[in-house]
Amino acid sequence: MQDFFMTAGSAQGKSFVDPVFSVLAAAKSAIKQYGQDQVINASIGTIYDEEEKFVTLSSLDRLLQGLSAADIMDYAPISGVAGFAEAVVSYTFGASKPESYVAAIATPGGTGAIRNVFFNYAEMGSRILVPDWFWGTYSLIANECGRQVDYYKLFNEDNTFNLASLEAKARELLQSQAHLVVVINTPAHNPTGYSLTEQEWTAVLSVFRELAKDAGKRIVVLIDVAYMDYAGDPAEARKFFRLFQGLPENILITVAFSMSKSFFAYGLRCGALIAVSSSRDVTDEFMAVNAYSTRANWSNVTRLPQELLVRIVNDQALSQEIDALRGHYRELLAQRAQIFVGEAQEAGLAICPYHAGFFISVPTGNAKQVCERLQQERIFVVPLKKGLRIAVCSVPTKKMPGLAASIKKALD
Amino acid sequence: MQDFFMTAGSAQGKSFVDPVFSVLAAAKSAIKQYGQDQVINASIGTIYDEEEKFVTLSSLDRLLQGLSAADIMDYAPISGVAGFAEAVVSYTFGASKPESYVAAIATPGGTGAIRNVFFNYAEMGSRILVPDWFWGTYSLIANECGRQVDYYKLFNEDNTFNLASLEAKARELLQSQAHLVVVINTPAHNPTGYSLTEQEWTAVLSVFRELAKDAGKRIVVLIDVAYMDYAGDPAEARKFFRLFQGLPENILITVAFSMSKSFFAYGLRCGALIAVSSSRDVTDEFMAVNAYSTRANWSNVTRLPQELLVRIVNDQALSQEIDALRGHYRELLAQRAQIFVGEAQEAGLAICPYHAGFFISVPTGNAKQVCERLQQERIFVVPLKKGLRIAVCSVPTKKMPGLAASIKKALD
Repeated sequence: MQDFFMTAGSAQGKSFVDPVFSVLAAAKSAIKQYGQDQVINASIGTIYDEEEKFVTLSSLDRLLQGLSAADIMDYAPISGVAGFAEAVVSYTFGASKPESYVAAIATPGGTGAIRNVFFNYAEMGSRILVPDWFWGTYSLIANECGRQVDYYKLFNEDNTFNLASLEAKARELLQSQAHLVVVINTPAHNPTGYSLTEQEWTAVLSVFRELAKDAGKRIVVLIDVAYMDYAGDPAEARKFFRLFQGLPENILITVAFSMSKSFFAYGLRCGALIAVSSSRDVTDEFMAVNAYSTRANWSNVTRLPQELLVRIVNDQALSQEIDALRGHYRELLAQRAQIFVGEAQEAGLAICPYHAGFFISVPTGNAKQVCERLQQERIFVVPLKKGLRIAVCSVPTKKMPGLAASIKKALD
Repeated sequence: MQDFFMTAGSAQGKSFVDPVFSVLAAAKSAIKQYGQDQVINASIGTIYDEEEKFVTLSSLDRLLQGLSAADIMDYAPISGVAGFAEAVVSYTFGASKPESYVAAIATPGGTGAIRNVFFNYAEMGSRILVPDWFWGTYSLIANECGRQVDYYKLFNEDNTFNLASLEAKARELLQSQAHLVVVINTPAHNPTGYSLTEQEWTAVLSVFRELAKDAGKRIVVLIDVAYMDYAGDPAEARKFFRLFQGLPENILITVAFSMSKSFFAYGLRCGALIAVSSSRDVTDEFMAVNAYSTRANWSNVTRLPQELLVRIVNDQALSQEIDALRGHYRELLAQRAQIFVGEAQEAGLAICPYHAGFFISVPTGNAKQVCERLQQERIFVVPLKKGLRIAVCSVPTKKMPGLAASIKKALD
């Protein structure tokens, strides 16, 4: 028990354990002892190729080498370099840009975007709705700024989107708070790989429209699209964005865009927060408060990745080249996942409904022990509160056969 | 008057005006109209060479081109890449590392470091002490997280450090709050160019030791050393760090290190927060709360500049090469400033005591109007609350003669 705190009250006792870190360390140790061929390391959340090497996009690497020193070293403006907001909007929405007011501001990855929505749109002490299968960092971001997450069930008994749970929880929270931020992580949800259909999105928006009839309420939808480029055909995966038009003034759609996965550029720390609203006043307010938050937390965003994105989006040939490179890995992930999903069905292993993306999840109330059992078999997966996270993004295809059966065995 | 807010209460009405932005825009417009030779643009806070071009370090540019794609694109660990903390400590303290427990964590520039100290060590609603001549962003950072800045007078009547004011304000605030964060921006203070002497530092620490005799108090000193490499001889400028040893447990020294100015790498967004304490528990707590804040605000820091710093610090020849390049510009800034300071004395223009650094300040209660008058003469300086900021970092030597007299005239 710590008896001396140097920190202020709200920071005292603050600490977190990265669930990936210890698993990854154990995997590395096993690889050292038994050799890479004897180990299945399904803990890493970045794309690894079939030789288990970290992947980058050669076109992006070349583009980077061609930037001037000033384009890398000088400050970027607070909202982003010239053309960045337009590039983000164009890239994110593609052919499905909603007919609404749209604004965008650079952020350090998706995390910075999420942080700014939680901080600027949820009241201190209030609750933010996230799915019960969720990226654990949502909770850290909320707690850091004195908010809390509360959960809606992501899946119903049919293993489709649980609209009833979302509606019930939203109604419940709106009884005691005027401002509600709701996180929807789609397409290719982390950690399950679920994607909302357009029909599900339409139903979700109906619920929010209904709730927004109380003019005193403020509903902010935060769509985390970090994995959107791995959710099947990119144009198809973007179609739901067209639905965000004609919404009442007190519904704000925000989109957390990240270059991390889409451009294999995790370490460059660049993303953006996009706002979609039927009100110009709301997007103006959005830019004002988020520019302030930018200046007051990280000052401005790394210039290099912004310069890259502007060049890519404005160069059709380069865009197509990068789309093709990325498409190759999207296919690879789909192949790896297909093996697992097929074998899970054969083995009678219940998994969360997987459509696409980096991760597959297996429900269990006993994740820690199951993970430990799997480590005896030199299989390394990440334990979550509600189950196991299997990173198909980093396991080569040849190691996928048998994995579902091994997990089934460890669960039994 | 805005009548509809989408934001949460604490974010409503939040906006800021960058004082540099409009001046810079006016300067650029004047350059377009009259030609560069006819304009003195003393508004830019980055180093420009004698041809008024943005400067980078060729050695750093070369080093960057040699990094592997993975060293640029993969995530950095939350605290920093392997060797980063050691490199930061070694670079910052040089031969003057204090005999104390030391810890360091990567941050997005100095801003991220300052943000984390304000957030984790000052109580919500409390006051943070900053000098009355100060970098305006301190106030934005404090306000963003529900703290406020309060001021000690930086200079006394002799134009040296106003210890009496610091002590009086610290005592005053400690009457109503247990936690006190005090910002000291030295050496080469922004915006005046003042550097505390070792004697002044010794006196400051005596005051804090005295205040810390009340065991219920927590005193956190935040030293912003963003301009430390422009404060004369680098080894001399670092000597004050040796003083931070043998301090009581309830005094924590934190240092905001930034690569922005030291490596002409403003846009790479990399700095670090360093802790110095006589207690290992305090540095352990420091790492825990700041790792949490990192994860919950920007996730991790851009990897590329971290990889650069590790390589530089571990390569003596490269370090010397970069020191020499930087030294050239430090000399250049000193020459430019010397002209201004000498002419100010001749012209009877009162200026803040300038030792070294990017900026010289001229006190006036009438900064906005004086700046406008100067713009008629095609001279562009930044208006602050207490005076004018003249960026000698970006004005070529040939344009310095006459500038002090022009400012004197505009003031009269």
